[in-house]
Amino acid sequence: MTSLDARVSPAVTTGPIIGSHKVYLGDLQVPVRRIELTDGDHLDVYDTSGPYTDDSATIDVHSGLREKRADWIANRRPVGGALTQLAYARAGVLTEEMRFCALREGVEPELVREEVAAGRAVIPVNRRHPESEPAIIGKKFLVKINANIGNSAVTSSIAEEVDKLVWAIRWGADTVMDLSTGKRIHETREWLLRNSPVPIGTVPIYQALEKVDGDPTELSWEIYRDTVLEQCEQGVDYMTVHAGVLLRYVPLTAKRVTGIVSRGGSIMAAWCLAHHRESFLYRHFDELCDIFRSYDVTFSLGDGLRPGSIADANDAAQFAELRTLGELTAIARAKDVQVMIEGPGHVPMHKIVENVRLEEELCGEAPFYTLGPLATDIAPAYDHITSAIGAAMIAQAGTAMLCYVTPKEHLGLPDRDDVKTGVITYKIAAHAADLAKQHPHAQQRDDALSKARFEFRWIDQFNLALDPDTARSFHDQTLPAEPAKTAHFCSMCGPKFCAMKITQDVRRYADEHGLTDEAAIAAGMTEKSVEFAARGNRVYLPTIQP
Amino acid sequence: MTSLDARVSPAVTTGPIIGSHKVYLGDLQVPVRRIELTDGDHLDVYDTSGPYTDDSATIDVHSGLREKRADWIANRRPVGGALTQLAYARAGVLTEEMRFCALREGVEPELVREEVAAGRAVIPVNRRHPESEPAIIGKKFLVKINANIGNSAVTSSIAEEVDKLVWAIRWGADTVMDLSTGKRIHETREWLLRNSPVPIGTVPIYQALEKVDGDPTELSWEIYRDTVLEQCEQGVDYMTVHAGVLLRYVPLTAKRVTGIVSRGGSIMAAWCLAHHRESFLYRHFDELCDIFRSYDVTFSLGDGLRPGSIADANDAAQFAELRTLGELTAIARAKDVQVMIEGPGHVPMHKIVENVRLEEELCGEAPFYTLGPLATDIAPAYDHITSAIGAAMIAQAGTAMLCYVTPKEHLGLPDRDDVKTGVITYKIAAHAADLAKQHPHAQQRDDALSKARFEFRWIDQFNLALDPDTARSFHDQTLPAEPAKTAHFCSMCGPKFCAMKITQDVRRYADEHGLTDEAAIAAGMTEKSVEFAARGNRVYLPTIQP
Repeated sequence: MTSLDARVSPAVTTGPIIGSHKVYLGDLQVPVRRIELTDGDHLDVYDTSGPYTDDSATIDVHSGLREKRADWIANRRPVGGALTQLAYARAGVLTEEMRFCALREGVEPELVREEVAAGRAVIPVNRRHPESEPAIIGKKFLVKINANIGNSAVTSSIAEEVDKLVWAIRWGADTVMDLSTGKRIHETREWLLRNSPVPIGTVPIYQALEKVDGDPTELSWEIYRDTVLEQCEQGVDYMTVHAGVLLRYVPLTAKRVTGIVSRGGSIMAAWCLAHHRESFLYRHFDELCDIFRSYDVTFSLGDGLRPGSIADANDAAQFAELRTLGELTAIARAKDVQVMIEGPGHVPMHKIVENVRLEEELCGEAPFYTLGPLATDIAPAYDHITSAIGAAMIAQAGTAMLCYVTPKEHLGLPDRDDVKTGVITYKIAAHAADLAKQHPHAQQRDDALSKARFEFRWIDQFNLALDPDTARSFHDQTLPAEPAKTAHFCSMCGPKFCAMKITQDVRRYADEHGLTDEAAIAAGMTEKSVEFAARGNRVYLPTIQP
Repeated sequence: MTSLDARVSPAVTTGPIIGSHKVYLGDLQVPVRRIELTDGDHLDVYDTSGPYTDDSATIDVHSGLREKRADWIANRRPVGGALTQLAYARAGVLTEEMRFCALREGVEPELVREEVAAGRAVIPVNRRHPESEPAIIGKKFLVKINANIGNSAVTSSIAEEVDKLVWAIRWGADTVMDLSTGKRIHETREWLLRNSPVPIGTVPIYQALEKVDGDPTELSWEIYRDTVLEQCEQGVDYMTVHAGVLLRYVPLTAKRVTGIVSRGGSIMAAWCLAHHRESFLYRHFDELCDIFRSYDVTFSLGDGLRPGSIADANDAAQFAELRTLGELTAIARAKDVQVMIEGPGHVPMHKIVENVRLEEELCGEAPFYTLGPLATDIAPAYDHITSAIGAAMIAQAGTAMLCYVTPKEHLGLPDRDDVKTGVITYKIAAHAADLAKQHPHAQQRDDALSKARFEFRWIDQFNLALDPDTARSFHDQTLPAEPAKTAHFCSMCGPKFCAMKITQDVRRYADEHGLTDEAAIAAGMTEKSVEFAARGNRVYLPTIQP
């Protein structure tokens, strides 16, 4: 039984998102969020929020979540000495995790197995994190998003971070990275893991650095290894490792506008410079693979030399490191360890696709996991937007997971509101890419919402939105009364003209008269115009734009 | 002397944006916003804000702005009977407006003339709007953005709309459309025109409809023509005309998910259906051209059948209308009238480029002016973001002007804050496209801001941002004290580690030792690592991300 410090008392948000409730599908109890519509229909959507949105679940943050995967893990035998999803996939074994992911995505389990076996997708599931609900990250599946949280020495407490975790997954974060750098890193992480239904990622070098009082030159393989082992034991599902920052690449950053902007990257660069030796992460990568393999921890090979400005995008330093990440990918895969590759950063739109192309070529199509990228540097305070543009485009090109950026990027630490804004913004980018990639189920939600909009089912329109609460409140600012929720008009044109009704008339007429092809419709329309006049030419006119 | 109703008293925002001041360049007094930097340098940026941000200007909204173009217009002789910028450009005449635009854009005047002559760019400047500062809209120039304002019967007053105009141009709106539909349309427009330094656009059918008490079937060519003449006389610079909505296209919308969503489009569809005749706009287009020609009003040929949902994008109705807009473009150009083409709407990312390709092919490369498009339907309350993604991509592909979308789209009428959010979001999309199109000057601002960021010049970073006020306030939420503005750290890593300093050390070393190529730098780095150790291995570590 988990026992977390009784003096910490997080207040987390529970209960379903308005207009929906939790439903579990199949023998593996795959969660979906069911949005009930006023026309009697419903739409099930992918659900990352865990038991927190389940009205029938008892939430006790001190006990942690139920260990959903405990039996699956316990009943499993190694193949080829390995217990990783990659090893099973290669051996032709369909794990419960694979079947769970397949049902979540609405695809065949065999597709999941094939993609994992090929290394084109990963399922980050540490055997020591049995509370997690598996998710698959790969270009053939729904684009995923990650939310970064984590306390720093000064500004936030464990309780706040647990609250942010639950808040982030409520709005759709597929994974959460704990980037804590202050005191109580271990304890914060324990709280997050025991209460997280989504994969948790970390950057172990941050904690290792705390152990040497913040002096990177004092780091060593041994300190780092022990930190990784500690985190593996706790159940971290994937870890960022900046093993591609090589000594000889550091000079390539000297003439950059913004040098090295990755924290992990600069720690390793500092170490390499100080010791004038090759990075201990690179030299001991083999041993690291063995550790990851025994827990099934997934590598997220960090881009420590990613560009921090438009000027530095796609430069020699960035692509030199990417080539090394490709070498490391091959080493990890040979040991049945799952691998993702991290990507930029700041990249102008015309240089985005090249990043994906090169990553796929150099890293054997390992899932790409990018931070934005920001498509311009000139809008601090709006970098969720500058980066959503780049994120949507890079995901369309094949990126499997997007790390969110909040409005506070470059300026300060995100609070709860910033976390929500970042998550919703990235759900938009991810979904736009799912549409562009023509994911078979992606357009269902767009169509359902647009149909509701056209039929003036305001409540359904709100409830189908990524953020029903804000959609409703914006509507209510102009038309607060309850009858306005069923009115066939809105504040844009007002009751006098409104709206889209003419097309509704046209369509109803076509349906009633069986006008199924264009010629028949055209013929019918002539008749329609007579009928229309006979009815006194009463029409409604639509919406706001010219 | 202009005399506006003394009972209306708009309170508009005046004074420069923080950290900058107005400067006028050359004999034509082209305004720029000069951002002064703490390192003694400065950056001049394109400025749409008019005299309102000029500390030395006297603002009297009842008198209106100074008639900057009055002499230019008075001294001009017609060529081929026409006084339009297109006629002059074709005749090889460089007008003051062309030279003004060239200086604003930092390009040769001859490029402006060539592009206008070819119909690939327009300068919307009604001879009766002498207060305006000319701007050029075309794919070879900076991407422009439009902000829609306008009162409706219930919710806003003339004073509010004048305030919104000044507020929108303060943050960068290149043109403003007055979409008023309520009472006092004429008077509202008069207030806007007399106080606007940017081109004002309208949709005359809205006012025409008011004249027939909102019944579109009562509309006629005569009523419409008189409305257009009234607006031409007032000085409207460009007008949306939905002349491509033909009777035979209406049936093509019958099976759509969201039918006809353009207000103007549905008005015309209703008229065509009721009368079972071809649109009077189409039949009288020739006469309309003659009117536009005599004032140099620019057509914005409206896409009345644009898609209102992802499902309806790029369908037969939309592209049928586009083909007709191409025919109309040829007619207008033959009469030396300038033309823009309006575009969608809602389009998934993989269908965006096709819109630009087809528009250019069918409409003789007339400047494309699109509304977003929204890349997904599922995020009402965030449609400034869903559409910024589409807007950036369509602008990269060649769209010349982007019509903004505010967070209230589909839900209610934008207030002052929404207008600012919409404008800043679209400045981001436009600028991202300028970078992607490699506009020769676009990256200067990114580089200046990133350099300031790297050098911890916080004040400069704020002042170079699109929205200095919000950037500063976000920073101050975590580190409010004034010394934090010059500190070589921020709230992300705190004073213990911070930041990018290591690269600064590397670079300074390289500069001092003349290490200009990679080999030399590498050699120098060996030395550096020794020196580095000698200094006690003291490093600073950068920023927030893993």
